[in-house]
Amino acid sequence: MRQSKLFTKTRKEAPKDEVAKNAQLLIRGGYIYKEMAGVYAYLPLGLRVMNKIVDVIREEMNAIGGQEVSLTALQDKATWEKTGRWSDAVVDNWFKTKLRNGSEAGLAFTHEEPLTALMKDFISSYRNLPAAVYQFQTKFRNEERAKSGIMRGREFLMKDLYSFSKDEAEHADFYEKAKAAYVRVFERLGLGDRTYVTFATGGSFSKFSHEFQTVTDAGEDLIYVDEEKKIAVNKEVLDDAVLKDLGLDRSKLVEKKAVEVGNIFSLGTRFSDAFELTYVAEDGKPKPVVMGSYGIGPGRVMGAIVETLADDKGIVWPESVAPFAVHLIALDDKAGKVKVAADALYEKLVAKGIEVLYDDRDARAGEKFADSDLIGIPTRYIISEKTLAEDSVEEKDRKTGQVKMVAIKTL
Amino acid sequence: MRQSKLFTKTRKEAPKDEVAKNAQLLIRGGYIYKEMAGVYAYLPLGLRVMNKIVDVIREEMNAIGGQEVSLTALQDKATWEKTGRWSDAVVDNWFKTKLRNGSEAGLAFTHEEPLTALMKDFISSYRNLPAAVYQFQTKFRNEERAKSGIMRGREFLMKDLYSFSKDEAEHADFYEKAKAAYVRVFERLGLGDRTYVTFATGGSFSKFSHEFQTVTDAGEDLIYVDEEKKIAVNKEVLDDAVLKDLGLDRSKLVEKKAVEVGNIFSLGTRFSDAFELTYVAEDGKPKPVVMGSYGIGPGRVMGAIVETLADDKGIVWPESVAPFAVHLIALDDKAGKVKVAADALYEKLVAKGIEVLYDDRDARAGEKFADSDLIGIPTRYIISEKTLAEDSVEEKDRKTGQVKMVAIKTL
Repeated sequence: MRQSKLFTKTRKEAPKDEVAKNAQLLIRGGYIYKEMAGVYAYLPLGLRVMNKIVDVIREEMNAIGGQEVSLTALQDKATWEKTGRWSDAVVDNWFKTKLRNGSEAGLAFTHEEPLTALMKDFISSYRNLPAAVYQFQTKFRNEERAKSGIMRGREFLMKDLYSFSKDEAEHADFYEKAKAAYVRVFERLGLGDRTYVTFATGGSFSKFSHEFQTVTDAGEDLIYVDEEKKIAVNKEVLDDAVLKDLGLDRSKLVEKKAVEVGNIFSLGTRFSDAFELTYVAEDGKPKPVVMGSYGIGPGRVMGAIVETLADDKGIVWPESVAPFAVHLIALDDKAGKVKVAADALYEKLVAKGIEVLYDDRDARAGEKFADSDLIGIPTRYIISEKTLAEDSVEEKDRKTGQVKMVAIKTL
Repeated sequence: MRQSKLFTKTRKEAPKDEVAKNAQLLIRGGYIYKEMAGVYAYLPLGLRVMNKIVDVIREEMNAIGGQEVSLTALQDKATWEKTGRWSDAVVDNWFKTKLRNGSEAGLAFTHEEPLTALMKDFISSYRNLPAAVYQFQTKFRNEERAKSGIMRGREFLMKDLYSFSKDEAEHADFYEKAKAAYVRVFERLGLGDRTYVTFATGGSFSKFSHEFQTVTDAGEDLIYVDEEKKIAVNKEVLDDAVLKDLGLDRSKLVEKKAVEVGNIFSLGTRFSDAFELTYVAEDGKPKPVVMGSYGIGPGRVMGAIVETLADDKGIVWPESVAPFAVHLIALDDKAGKVKVAADALYEKLVAKGIEVLYDDRDARAGEKFADSDLIGIPTRYIISEKTLAEDSVEEKDRKTGQVKMVAIKTL
């Protein structure tokens, strides 16, 4: 894309009321726009990053047999009364609204209830199991405070997958597959080396749930990391019994701040009992379906990437999620020769299927470089009179800062 | 995809409270699920159709220079008070809710206000114009009645594009480009021959707006069609002055029921005035930006396709939006030879990049055919002992019912 056509511009300062580094940088780079506290619009660059994160997650969910759906934001009160979660005393972050006839409706903060109700139409026999259903859908959570930028929104995209199994053994099998898929997701998204499978509160149906915690000072959680074993324990469950259970040595654990970028949870029959979601087993007897839930917030992942990988010049995207692979910067000469060469190179790269942001603007070199650092595209090609004298571009790696000349004909 | 793995099933009857043909067929086929009146979840088949409609629209919006964003559902009261549209007396279909601090928020039914406010960050000079910004985003409308299935929802996906131009001439130029893009969209989606560019109420800034009306008895609008000129007039603006203005002869017009699948609207400076969205012109003077809005409801399009193209056996999808291109149906023999051949053909077609739904279920032939008719995939390949004796499949066209034998090696 030609940068002269991109309607967003970078800005020197973030809004004064924005305290989170991720939102400050993303707003300055023209990735997002703050609508209200905890409510952000995604601009063209931001939407490109978000879609790449979504695509990675989708591939991994499909690979473990997930089938994609899209449930609704508006929720029926009666559905949620079945589990007691309609009550504001039980769930304190509902957004509620009213239909014209005066009846109440909620905005979904999660989707266990409506999906369990829906699956009653489709699960009746052991032949229908196992099943894994997921979506990328907007969640609404009426957070008291929303000061972590896109890492904790009042409105945010979430990938939530739900599994339906015949029994605990089948559930455990899928749960491990999902855990491995999550590890792959965070590796592919560039967070693998600082993201830990973390033991956390389980609930009635299992001793633990598993969180995927990315270490960052911007995180709101405290975890205790065993670097050798590459696992962690959330502070909320850390006690001697748990350490013994997990075979961990307290003296080897290091306390770190982290943000929960994903979690997986065994739900047992809590929801299937409430909705009478049963199936006829091979022995002809009705049995309750065993469920699990598996969440990742793509916006939170995007925020965590910015928080952990940015440097003092701006954002540094991993290749897998960068809005463009290459930032082509033309330092125009008066004769216009550079422009001709840059236009030709841009067309050539695009024809090869490479995603290029082409800074063809009539702007100073210093402004172009500063914008490019802020925007954070992994590879920069600078083309100028000087580089053209060698029929080359100067290639610069955003992350390492390494520079080399590359012959144009090899691109 | 193997149909034995698809978690949805067809059903013989739609819910009793569902009166719209589009929703009845889509629910029976396992495309959608009714959450509440006017609120539908999209299941795997339905989401595939929706995504294909979205992709067609996106291509055409990109082709006229549209840049994609994603704005928010939650809306700030102060933003909407600037145009007076926060008032329930002015806009009667708001869903409103409250933040924890007690302040009100709305759920967007459209996005002129927030986008105009946003563009103040990016438009300051004639160099920033023209610009066209669009999104696919969920709208919330608190409809009094919601009896048209997915053609009029309380929660629905909408493509809304907004244009920003220097003056009326530049606006008119983009408006005509958008109109032509809309014609292409509906042609590509299989509704071209029954969709009319329809003159409708304009508002303060232009005599007319243009609706794209698809003729169907399920429509809620009345239009007057001139078949020769391939245009129509909405009943709401039909009078002698308008007919004269458009050069139409009342005796040639035919009254038809239709559904509005798209509309384009000149907004003039209504919103830019309210938000003081101005730019510095080439002469150095500040001028207001001239705007337009351009909407298509992908769900409404999907409903209109079902309403207009379905037959008494079920849905008939155009190729451009069908969830799969081919429905491969294996009529298994006892020896299992058919299954082996069908598995091989399925793998071969998938390897060629053809989207195939493969009915590998252990079910009677009659049930498979009835399901296939209901689901409405354009091309059906039947493979059985009989067809295998000729090393062929029987190919059946869902729309015409035409049947022919096709050698497997040519597929």
